[in-house]
Amino acid sequence: MNNEKIRVACLQLAPRIGDAGYNRQLSEERVRDAAEKGADVIVLPELMQSGYAFSDLSEALQVAEDLSGPTVALWTQLALELGIVLVGGFCERLSHHQVANSAVLIQPEGEVTLYRKAHLWNAEKLVFTPGDRPPPVVQTRFGNIGLMICYDLEFPEWVRLPALAGAQLLCAPVNWPDAPRPADERAAEVVRVQANAAVNRMFIATCDRHGEERGVHWVGGSVIVDPDGYPLAGRLRIAAEQMLMADLDLGQANDKSISARNHVHRDRRPSLY
Amino acid sequence: MNNEKIRVACLQLAPRIGDAGYNRQLSEERVRDAAEKGADVIVLPELMQSGYAFSDLSEALQVAEDLSGPTVALWTQLALELGIVLVGGFCERLSHHQVANSAVLIQPEGEVTLYRKAHLWNAEKLVFTPGDRPPPVVQTRFGNIGLMICYDLEFPEWVRLPALAGAQLLCAPVNWPDAPRPADERAAEVVRVQANAAVNRMFIATCDRHGEERGVHWVGGSVIVDPDGYPLAGRLRIAAEQMLMADLDLGQANDKSISARNHVHRDRRPSLY
Repeated sequence: MNNEKIRVACLQLAPRIGDAGYNRQLSEERVRDAAEKGADVIVLPELMQSGYAFSDLSEALQVAEDLSGPTVALWTQLALELGIVLVGGFCERLSHHQVANSAVLIQPEGEVTLYRKAHLWNAEKLVFTPGDRPPPVVQTRFGNIGLMICYDLEFPEWVRLPALAGAQLLCAPVNWPDAPRPADERAAEVVRVQANAAVNRMFIATCDRHGEERGVHWVGGSVIVDPDGYPLAGRLRIAAEQMLMADLDLGQANDKSISARNHVHRDRRPSLY
Repeated sequence: MNNEKIRVACLQLAPRIGDAGYNRQLSEERVRDAAEKGADVIVLPELMQSGYAFSDLSEALQVAEDLSGPTVALWTQLALELGIVLVGGFCERLSHHQVANSAVLIQPEGEVTLYRKAHLWNAEKLVFTPGDRPPPVVQTRFGNIGLMICYDLEFPEWVRLPALAGAQLLCAPVNWPDAPRPADERAAEVVRVQANAAVNRMFIATCDRHGEERGVHWVGGSVIVDPDGYPLAGRLRIAAEQMLMADLDLGQANDKSISARNHVHRDRRPSLY
């Protein structure tokens, strides 16, 4: 691990449904901007490449790409050129009739790690094939980084897996559809991220999106949370494009002790669960 | 189940270490007061009967009682007389050299259900024998009520058990030691309760304590949370004695759907965890 702080950026952007060319260009511009501002790890939203609100599977198939497609190629080129870890979501073509809601983590040396969303939200069940592999934890030059997508975060059992596997930072591209909620309360989506961080003493960087899409608006809840569960950036949700940044000492996530005799992972009693 | 609202009260009191007589009297006064105000379910703090900050096991043994002791006798009499469900924590004598950090849920018909804290906090490990039975879920005249204690709440796997077993309301006596935290943030202990409620769509009533004890102060974070994860009472922590009350339609906790195609429990993928 390392003792220096790394700079993490979440780019809350507004992709356009079905317009991968525009979305690639937008991601490139903003990733270059964040790297210029010193970001080491940059997180893009879920389905950044494709947009979210597909009418059906055939529309998703039209925009889907695989790992050899132009989006992962561009993002890999950016990671190599800028010396960054880049995380972003895309609509992955699995076959002529199957797509996944996927994300990649690309290292500055060019290595690509894939994850497919395992817990699908609402109409996603009509479009995407769910993943069945656990969230990866990747040893990068900046630290150990885990990866999952949006609704996955609402299953604390799922978040445990990368935490137990040594993730210091969990990066989570999300698209959080907005819904009525108490005006004076922090969005429950963000609250759940805070709790996930605290019970695992792990950093979490969650990147939401912006841009109305077929009647869907978004929470605008991008947030970077520390291992105590408190936000370092994104305390207030902002339903607009924004770039969140925070400097993290990932070594803090190695210390799972929360008292002289308590350790958030060793205190678990898995034989009883 | 029922369609009428029930009234839940959390009595954030200040027990005195080792003074079971005083603590019983205090609990009786405040329980009668809450019942007069219409409470159906009343939650007292963890170790209400004994106080918390024991120097060692022998001090705890001096105040410990079993289920036939005067505290459970008093509380049972109150539940019967007032027609309430009463939940409270006590130092339970297991043998001449063992105690547990326990809680009881007593029904208005007099039935007593016991739970022993399974996850011990800090110096508790030097005093208490941990429980090894899952949190009970009790069918009461007011609805299905689960029971656990304080640090147990920081293990989402543990909270899942009563939720999956049908708890509509989880009652949790706690003693949350205070510690430095951001002044403008809700205490992370409360945040974790909110998340536990939301991911299970279950009400949670958490009763903290007050009263400095051997240098320990308390969060004062008693809170009653709805199945969306938002506080119905206790939005702001108050480090003082207080009685929180909220009227709950426990039937809301039967509906685990959060979209046309999502169900917080059926969306779990236990074969992958």
